[in-house]
Amino acid sequence: MPPGITLAADAPQLSSANTGFMLICSALVMIMTPGLAFFYGGMVRVKSTLNMLMMSFISLGIVTILWVLYGFSLAFGESNGFIGWSKDYFGLSGIGLVQLWPGYSIPIYVFAVFQLMFAVITPALISGALADRVKFTAWALFTALWVTVVYFPVAHWVWASDGWLFKKGVIDFAGGTAVHINAGAAALGVILVIGKRVGFKKDPMRPHSLPLVMLGAGLLWFGWFGFNAGSWLGNDDGVGAVMFVNTQVATAAAMLAWLLYEKLRHGSFTTLGAASGAVAGLVAITPSGGCVSPLGAIAIGVIAGVLCAMAINLKYRFGFDDSLDVVGVHMVGGITGSLLVGLFATGGVQSTAKGLFYGGGLDQLGKQALGVGAVLGYSLVVSAVLALALDKTIGMRVPEDDEVSGIDQVEHAETAYDFSGAGGGTAPRRTVAVPGEMAANKKVDA
Amino acid sequence: MPPGITLAADAPQLSSANTGFMLICSALVMIMTPGLAFFYGGMVRVKSTLNMLMMSFISLGIVTILWVLYGFSLAFGESNGFIGWSKDYFGLSGIGLVQLWPGYSIPIYVFAVFQLMFAVITPALISGALADRVKFTAWALFTALWVTVVYFPVAHWVWASDGWLFKKGVIDFAGGTAVHINAGAAALGVILVIGKRVGFKKDPMRPHSLPLVMLGAGLLWFGWFGFNAGSWLGNDDGVGAVMFVNTQVATAAAMLAWLLYEKLRHGSFTTLGAASGAVAGLVAITPSGGCVSPLGAIAIGVIAGVLCAMAINLKYRFGFDDSLDVVGVHMVGGITGSLLVGLFATGGVQSTAKGLFYGGGLDQLGKQALGVGAVLGYSLVVSAVLALALDKTIGMRVPEDDEVSGIDQVEHAETAYDFSGAGGGTAPRRTVAVPGEMAANKKVDA
Amino acid sequence: MPPGITLAADAPQLSSANTGFMLICSALVMIMTPGLAFFYGGMVRVKSTLNMLMMSFISLGIVTILWVLYGFSLAFGESNGFIGWSKDYFGLSGIGLVQLWPGYSIPIYVFAVFQLMFAVITPALISGALADRVKFTAWALFTALWVTVVYFPVAHWVWASDGWLFKKGVIDFAGGTAVHINAGAAALGVILVIGKRVGFKKDPMRPHSLPLVMLGAGLLWFGWFGFNAGSWLGNDDGVGAVMFVNTQVATAAAMLAWLLYEKLRHGSFTTLGAASGAVAGLVAITPSGGCVSPLGAIAIGVIAGVLCAMAINLKYRFGFDDSLDVVGVHMVGGITGSLLVGLFATGGVQSTAKGLFYGGGLDQLGKQALGVGAVLGYSLVVSAVLALALDKTIGMRVPEDDEVSGIDQVEHAETAYDFSGAGGGTAPRRTVAVPGEMAANKKVDA
Repeated sequence: MPPGITLAADAPQLSSANTGFMLICSALVMIMTPGLAFFYGGMVRVKSTLNMLMMSFISLGIVTILWVLYGFSLAFGESNGFIGWSKDYFGLSGIGLVQLWPGYSIPIYVFAVFQLMFAVITPALISGALADRVKFTAWALFTALWVTVVYFPVAHWVWASDGWLFKKGVIDFAGGTAVHINAGAAALGVILVIGKRVGFKKDPMRPHSLPLVMLGAGLLWFGWFGFNAGSWLGNDDGVGAVMFVNTQVATAAAMLAWLLYEKLRHGSFTTLGAASGAVAGLVAITPSGGCVSPLGAIAIGVIAGVLCAMAINLKYRFGFDDSLDVVGVHMVGGITGSLLVGLFATGGVQSTAKGLFYGGGLDQLGKQALGVGAVLGYSLVVSAVLALALDKTIGMRVPEDDEVSGIDQVEHAETAYDFSGAGGGTAPRRTVAVPGEMAANKKVDA
Repeated sequence: MPPGITLAADAPQLSSANTGFMLICSALVMIMTPGLAFFYGGMVRVKSTLNMLMMSFISLGIVTILWVLYGFSLAFGESNGFIGWSKDYFGLSGIGLVQLWPGYSIPIYVFAVFQLMFAVITPALISGALADRVKFTAWALFTALWVTVVYFPVAHWVWASDGWLFKKGVIDFAGGTAVHINAGAAALGVILVIGKRVGFKKDPMRPHSLPLVMLGAGLLWFGWFGFNAGSWLGNDDGVGAVMFVNTQVATAAAMLAWLLYEKLRHGSFTTLGAASGAVAGLVAITPSGGCVSPLGAIAIGVIAGVLCAMAINLKYRFGFDDSLDVVGVHMVGGITGSLLVGLFATGGVQSTAKGLFYGGGLDQLGKQALGVGAVLGYSLVVSAVLALALDKTIGMRVPEDDEVSGIDQVEHAETAYDFSGAGGGTAPRRTVAVPGEMAANKKVDA
Repeated sequence: MPPGITLAADAPQLSSANTGFMLICSALVMIMTPGLAFFYGGMVRVKSTLNMLMMSFISLGIVTILWVLYGFSLAFGESNGFIGWSKDYFGLSGIGLVQLWPGYSIPIYVFAVFQLMFAVITPALISGALADRVKFTAWALFTALWVTVVYFPVAHWVWASDGWLFKKGVIDFAGGTAVHINAGAAALGVILVIGKRVGFKKDPMRPHSLPLVMLGAGLLWFGWFGFNAGSWLGNDDGVGAVMFVNTQVATAAAMLAWLLYEKLRHGSFTTLGAASGAVAGLVAITPSGGCVSPLGAIAIGVIAGVLCAMAINLKYRFGFDDSLDVVGVHMVGGITGSLLVGLFATGGVQSTAKGLFYGGGLDQLGKQALGVGAVLGYSLVVSAVLALALDKTIGMRVPEDDEVSGIDQVEHAETAYDFSGAGGGTAPRRTVAVPGEMAANKKVDA
């Protein structure tokens, strides 16, 4: 170490192992937001691909800055139970280099940046419900407002040691309530305000690139290990490891369950079903994976896979345009996983709380229901109010004509692809040759 | 740490550093299976892209569940030399939270999930030989049967401390025999049963997306560091680090060697050659990288790159349709790397065993040949028998007409891409504009 | 640990935590080169996509081997201030298994492979300026020569403890001078020699795939955490963590700043702007993030985002074809970040040096200017001379006709995509169906 570093007196308690692990986990959670962008971006029609990508990427910009400025302070500052505030956290400017997160072996900076990545992806999750039809400026503004009045407080309720839901004994290991129910309920609130896409239920709206969807699903699955196992903030015991195992197991089970469900109902194993099932499993194990056994994780995955596969049809029955199934997968999956804690908690991993199936009665289930209800209700109502306020002022939706012609050109002045090939001014030639011609002539005139 | 956690008496021996590292390595190995899906998926024609992706992704589902249920017990339970079994490993249900893998500083759960990822990718590797023509249900069933009767036992032979090949002194650091020869020989066994694609050797079957292939190759290379360096299960000494260095070095050398070979033979440096050469290097260093020097790794990479580049033409000479060169790259590369241990082992890294070039005589080479022969023979025969049994009962192949029209629509009711752009019910417009028109008119009618 | 491992006497000093962390960081830096390939590959027209990918991937091959052979020795061997050499580092052949990098807790092998990844990506960065028009063999040769006479010495100047710029007190945490200014100045040197693309300023040269660009940007951002936080070589204090935080913060700020700049100047928030702004922020924080506060990182990000967004138009004003803005983003961003150390260094993180705004006067700014000037001047001149020498001998550019028809077919005998779908010999059918027809008939004749 070069001279000139001033170490705090408590530096020996810093664990280089846990600090390094948490930094890597933070990077893993960061890549989930691009992963989500591809997951959503592949699912929409080609004409709104870029807008879908940008709705996720912009969160990396906006939420990062707000988190540094005041978000971390609101979510994890000194508490009155409902919201935090610590002057030292404002601008992350009063934090010592090796000042540790109270009770843990990692610097506050590390905890802050890990939690930052959660704050980034949560509003991005909402965007999947809003495909094709929301002004980019309105979305950016919504993101800033939403994290301020919904995400930062709710994260405080659930995860701060003085948060009121935490103190009630609600278990949410890595974000079933604070992230997934929160985002799903917000999505529902917003789409009830802004309405459906042109052509909803009438036009076929096929994913324009399933390989892009699978890339997104793969990156989400990969990064989710950091999201889930990292939420224990270190590996001095085996809890993070069990969470990691259960993440893999529930995801696998949910993917299989969703595929079997759709095979029986619709006759095929689809790629989109595999991706959706995997995400449903990831969502459901997020709150629950720290307190169940691997066999419990299989059960949770199967239940979540089937319930979410059923839930995505609700939008057609009730006529709300949850475009890419944020409500069906994240809200329903989050509720499922959060409640199942009350049934499958073994009492032997993350906490001593036992679920119904392990002799714990209905006590924990009641606590979980409280957490679900509080977050769902608050997020649904406040998000709808925010959307309404924006819609009445600057307007949330693009003009119908622009929606039909494609939001990418209107809002971003770009189109996702240009396979036209020849672009040179002189002698354009075809570069994507038809196979037969390739053999005959390597360079063919157009 | 919150109250309520019960730590076992031997908890102090747990290394948070190695535990964290192994969890990240497990995530790295996990992303290899999606990486493989893209690597293979980009190489096939557009009409069978999704089927190719799904053959890999489904392994993440099926093998994960089987591993938890009984696979880990078969592969790493108490041993008779040929197969393991431990009641506590069944369903991973009798394992303590901080119970360590015997002799190591990581929990059994961590070892189990790291090995799980190996079990997942191995059958997925086989699928590259079966492009375009296998019923998805038959493939799923084959995967479940194959890991049960081939992968779980073979992993036991090679890696369990009582496995018969391990006890014979066969060196396989990270899976040259258990993963690559195993998968390559299985691929050969299956394609000898199911036969060639329609149009083999006649139709040009160009990769439909080389960027997708390169994405797959990039993710494989990236994840392979976890696969290889993680196989030492910790970083208390420098062995894992040397393995990491050698992985990078051999991969680079094999890529260059393959490219130079094809430049000399066919006149061009191709993208597909770069990707294939890199994978050949990764395969060959997998068994050998823990016992050779970086200069030895260069030699192994060059040899594997050239041999595999030559080997992929065998399928045309002998008329077996190893569609995406699983035999040519994984079987041949695995044999190459496994045998070269017998020549290049320095005696100073992973083990004291010396190869021929380091004064060790032919002893280690003989052991390596035993390992290669045993795994190759067992996997080839049993895999062919499995394929034959499935073919005679439920049938392995899709009807020829469906194969020609495209397996994606038939088996998955989807197509990979839809660039048709306009999808709105009213006033369709072209979104992927020709450049010239872009300037003239941002929104153009179709 | 199996028997047979010989541990050096100083083994207890090895930190398994830092060793594991640095191996993962090395993997993260490795994935940046494929990330860069996709970032650049998506930005060019479809006809030169593969060439763009290959210019990055080949660096993984060539530079890895040269690094092992003599690069590490030149960059980090015993020093005369300007270049290093240690016999033991030649071929990495005289390094002990657990011999530690002097003053640190990680093996030399780990330090060597981490630095290897930096050497790989730096020449790949240059390739973005050379789109569409450079012979692949000439590029490969240029890469080998350039790392030898430019990168290895410059890395020595900046990072070796006896390097002359290091001893002058120039601060470059992770490569603002050695990587980004170096690559940007080299790009400028080369394009002044080889000239512009056919159609520069006349033809629209739209990115052929913005999703591919965003994939590249996402992987770069992800891997950059390893690049930046890893450069502290361990987590025994909080410096690497602060670097991680600042990396995220500056990147977010630069993305927002670039987007706002282009909204005001050109009327739209573009996807390409988001990606470019993020990279500009990553570049600018690379030299500076270890000595500034998060609020300082916001300022650096905003300044870099705006300056780089302005700088990319210089190529049109001065008529040099910096095709994908290597000069505008990496050289300008690198200069910005390096100089801003002289203003924003707090004196309290990486070093006690203080910038102008923290009461340190102009001293550090002067040192930074020296570093910028030395690297920029040396790289620009030597790179131009190299390009000139190659151009006069083997020729750097492909024939104009080949450039227009597309370099992929000419140099690599491939095209990036083949969406033609039907490829079977008999009864070709259309696989990418038009939506309306899908409903009517799952399999449609062409």
